[in-house]
Amino acid sequence: MDKSLQELADLLHGSVTGDPGIRIRGMGTLETAGEGEITFLANPKYAGKVATTNASAVVLSAEANNHGRPGIIVANPYLAFAKLLTLFTTRPRTARGVMKGACVGEDVVMGTEISVYPGAVIGDGVRIGHRVTLHPNVTLYEGVVLGDDVILHAGVSVREGCRIGNRVIVHNGTVIGSDGFGYAPDEKSWYKIPQIGVVIIEDDVEIGANAAVDRAALEITRIGRGTKIDNLVQIAHNCVIGEDCVIVAQAGIAGSARLGNHVTLGGQVAIVGHITVGDNAMISGQSGVMGNVAPGEILSGTPAIPHQARLRSAAIFPHLPEMRKSLHRLGNRMTKVEEVLEQTKSRIPEGSA
Amino acid sequence: MDKSLQELADLLHGSVTGDPGIRIRGMGTLETAGEGEITFLANPKYAGKVATTNASAVVLSAEANNHGRPGIIVANPYLAFAKLLTLFTTRPRTARGVMKGACVGEDVVMGTEISVYPGAVIGDGVRIGHRVTLHPNVTLYEGVVLGDDVILHAGVSVREGCRIGNRVIVHNGTVIGSDGFGYAPDEKSWYKIPQIGVVIIEDDVEIGANAAVDRAALEITRIGRGTKIDNLVQIAHNCVIGEDCVIVAQAGIAGSARLGNHVTLGGQVAIVGHITVGDNAMISGQSGVMGNVAPGEILSGTPAIPHQARLRSAAIFPHLPEMRKSLHRLGNRMTKVEEVLEQTKSRIPEGSA
Amino acid sequence: MDKSLQELADLLHGSVTGDPGIRIRGMGTLETAGEGEITFLANPKYAGKVATTNASAVVLSAEANNHGRPGIIVANPYLAFAKLLTLFTTRPRTARGVMKGACVGEDVVMGTEISVYPGAVIGDGVRIGHRVTLHPNVTLYEGVVLGDDVILHAGVSVREGCRIGNRVIVHNGTVIGSDGFGYAPDEKSWYKIPQIGVVIIEDDVEIGANAAVDRAALEITRIGRGTKIDNLVQIAHNCVIGEDCVIVAQAGIAGSARLGNHVTLGGQVAIVGHITVGDNAMISGQSGVMGNVAPGEILSGTPAIPHQARLRSAAIFPHLPEMRKSLHRLGNRMTKVEEVLEQTKSRIPEGSA
Repeated sequence: MDKSLQELADLLHGSVTGDPGIRIRGMGTLETAGEGEITFLANPKYAGKVATTNASAVVLSAEANNHGRPGIIVANPYLAFAKLLTLFTTRPRTARGVMKGACVGEDVVMGTEISVYPGAVIGDGVRIGHRVTLHPNVTLYEGVVLGDDVILHAGVSVREGCRIGNRVIVHNGTVIGSDGFGYAPDEKSWYKIPQIGVVIIEDDVEIGANAAVDRAALEITRIGRGTKIDNLVQIAHNCVIGEDCVIVAQAGIAGSARLGNHVTLGGQVAIVGHITVGDNAMISGQSGVMGNVAPGEILSGTPAIPHQARLRSAAIFPHLPEMRKSLHRLGNRMTKVEEVLEQTKSRIPEGSA
Repeated sequence: MDKSLQELADLLHGSVTGDPGIRIRGMGTLETAGEGEITFLANPKYAGKVATTNASAVVLSAEANNHGRPGIIVANPYLAFAKLLTLFTTRPRTARGVMKGACVGEDVVMGTEISVYPGAVIGDGVRIGHRVTLHPNVTLYEGVVLGDDVILHAGVSVREGCRIGNRVIVHNGTVIGSDGFGYAPDEKSWYKIPQIGVVIIEDDVEIGANAAVDRAALEITRIGRGTKIDNLVQIAHNCVIGEDCVIVAQAGIAGSARLGNHVTLGGQVAIVGHITVGDNAMISGQSGVMGNVAPGEILSGTPAIPHQARLRSAAIFPHLPEMRKSLHRLGNRMTKVEEVLEQTKSRIPEGSA
Repeated sequence: MDKSLQELADLLHGSVTGDPGIRIRGMGTLETAGEGEITFLANPKYAGKVATTNASAVVLSAEANNHGRPGIIVANPYLAFAKLLTLFTTRPRTARGVMKGACVGEDVVMGTEISVYPGAVIGDGVRIGHRVTLHPNVTLYEGVVLGDDVILHAGVSVREGCRIGNRVIVHNGTVIGSDGFGYAPDEKSWYKIPQIGVVIIEDDVEIGANAAVDRAALEITRIGRGTKIDNLVQIAHNCVIGEDCVIVAQAGIAGSARLGNHVTLGGQVAIVGHITVGDNAMISGQSGVMGNVAPGEILSGTPAIPHQARLRSAAIFPHLPEMRKSLHRLGNRMTKVEEVLEQTKSRIPEGSA
């Protein structure tokens, strides 16, 4: 496949500088790209390399376009890079149908151009959209619904009745719809509360490997459109996650918590149950959030406090031993001063001043 | 299915108030339940809604029974709710036998009324009790023993020789009996210590999705009767977990640690190896426990300290910068005072007082 | 199987004390070993038991060899124990070939003496070395390469094009080569950056259960020779992990981080992206490392600081409330002293001293 610079500019909603007819058949970095390849400048730190790259064209921002090289001017060169990488590296998908070694239950409805690999098991009453790929050893329980263009990687389980939107990607080993962790105390023991809700995953969500999203106790655990979830993340029952959130690896969200839109949780963050995290909030890695978070807040630490305040306090933490010693010494000096002052006062002659 | 109020009261060990013959065929919340349905009042905050619910009967405590509505009086309404939910939502289990696409090894002993789904693989010499369900792509290695009424969800692995009691539920992707993490230093490298012990899981244990319970080095990693373990929990080799413990998601317990009975570990807690946590101890989320814990202790933080003390110190943590400044200023004031005092003393006439 | 004491000494690179012809057919602890068995003394605390053990021989260090019992003198008795345990407990491996219920794609090259269990799915173009074991429900995507003597346990996935060296063991449910977590901001949404790199796992690596190692965005995520990784560990895209590292359960390493050789990460440690951790560094459990770590450093806490300093500050943390009160009281005393001193000064007669 090759494309003219003009065709690429159209794809990227950018404008061409130089010859729009230059043919591009691949891409590389400023160092590695050669003749017939396009590269990009996202970080101004590397602007000097635009002059010396062997690439046939460069994607860059208007401000950085002062090198006289053929190229495409875009608002967001990093996004453009991602789009070009997708263009040049995505292989056309081949629908393989239901392959030998896959098992399909009763009353299953399947769209066109699907691939169901060996070892995939589709339960009764499942509905699958068009162009869906089920990799080996995927399990769909009874009544699962998958939209169009869904990719479930090997070993994924989707439990009974859960529903997954269009263009959702779930990586290997992830579990959607396992029972929520709910028990009623029964003297010293625990009585299991049936978890009869479901999980709904909206369009354009991507979930990493070996994550777990529990089904709701009674209603719906929901992952909002466009949200991206990394490996080994735990999402408990009844959580409602907004749109376009980013949840980094090993974070955990306890039951019935609600995240707004465009929330970022760093790696290993813990969100306690039944709280609300506002739109655009950011929680730094390993933090533990114990209460509601206002929109746009940036928190860190356990318990989480505003990020800048936490950095200031954390910087002082290593000085605690010297602070304690100072405090002790000051106490001694104070006692001494108080004694001396008392003696001094008493030595001033009667009637002075 | 429907039941009389009296039948439900018998099931719940409660007593009827109003007409014991009222027929109940389902349940709902105080807001959603209607004619023919029963609801419950567990949280006194919602007591006002008992008067206005459309439910035909209400489960509540003796203290809350002042509304004159038909109902069932029980000691623990929340537990009663869980039991009613189980009654009204559990579908009768259909034994499906060993389905096409499942693989059964040699010398396997299986009880009656089992379901073995496609993709499940049963190793040689495995013994399986009655009414067991093995979902798709479950793997039982050689010599595994399962009790009665066990449910292993899709993708669960049980490794060689491990034994699981009655009524145990294991959710998708969880691994029972992987090798413990043990190596002997061999100059700069690591020599693997064979992990030849097993895991024993006692009756009525439930384990969430994508958790890992390692086999012992030489003897037994044990999970005690009735203990509930959430998703993504790590239990290392040689651990002995008591009965009726609750271990929340992403907690990790290092090798040879021992938990008593009815211990609670919050999410993302870490327990170091070779320590003992006493009965009824509670460790709050994200805490790191570095030493033995006495029965009934409530700890938090890393390293974990008594929970109340930790809350008090955590509340002061954000004030560290101002404390350090205060300390510095106090030091300066002290130096000034000492100087002035010295001068003052020296200005007092000889022989005064 | 039995061996003479001399044969065992040769295996352990040790020297015999006593009759080299004694026959040994098994092993046990100092308490449990009996006639015909060998035991070992690794911890000097148990030296007293050497005199009373029923074992026919004892493995110990030269310094501890003062008991007159037949034995083998070695430099590292714990390593010797591991080697003897391997010798006496390892069953000979039986190659079972490609079993019924396994699926093999096109253009697959397989070595001799392999075992491929039911439910294992091998993609097109895969290459597998000699004496490899693929347990049930393992999935190898297209183009995967496995060395000799590799063991992949049930439920492991190895994604497209990833390469695994010789003698590598991967425990159940672990995922090698899932997509790295990379997105470009596209207004409020996220545009997926294709992850077209691979994972390379070098010889003698062992990885625990339900871990995740992401493929690189463009190039290689690498796990160095001899490194041991515990359960539920997250290794993000582009990481380069050195040789002989030890990474304990639930630790997470963010994208593009580099670990040197022989680095130890405790359980639940977090390493942020794009930093370097030097050779032989040790990070204690639950720590969060935010910047480069020099070779040999021992760090703990979040943000991580030198371990001893952290212990000292952590010991003072519970005293923060009393420190704050002391500080407040000192401030009050100081104000009082300053006032009194001012008054006192003013009471000294003019012209004094």
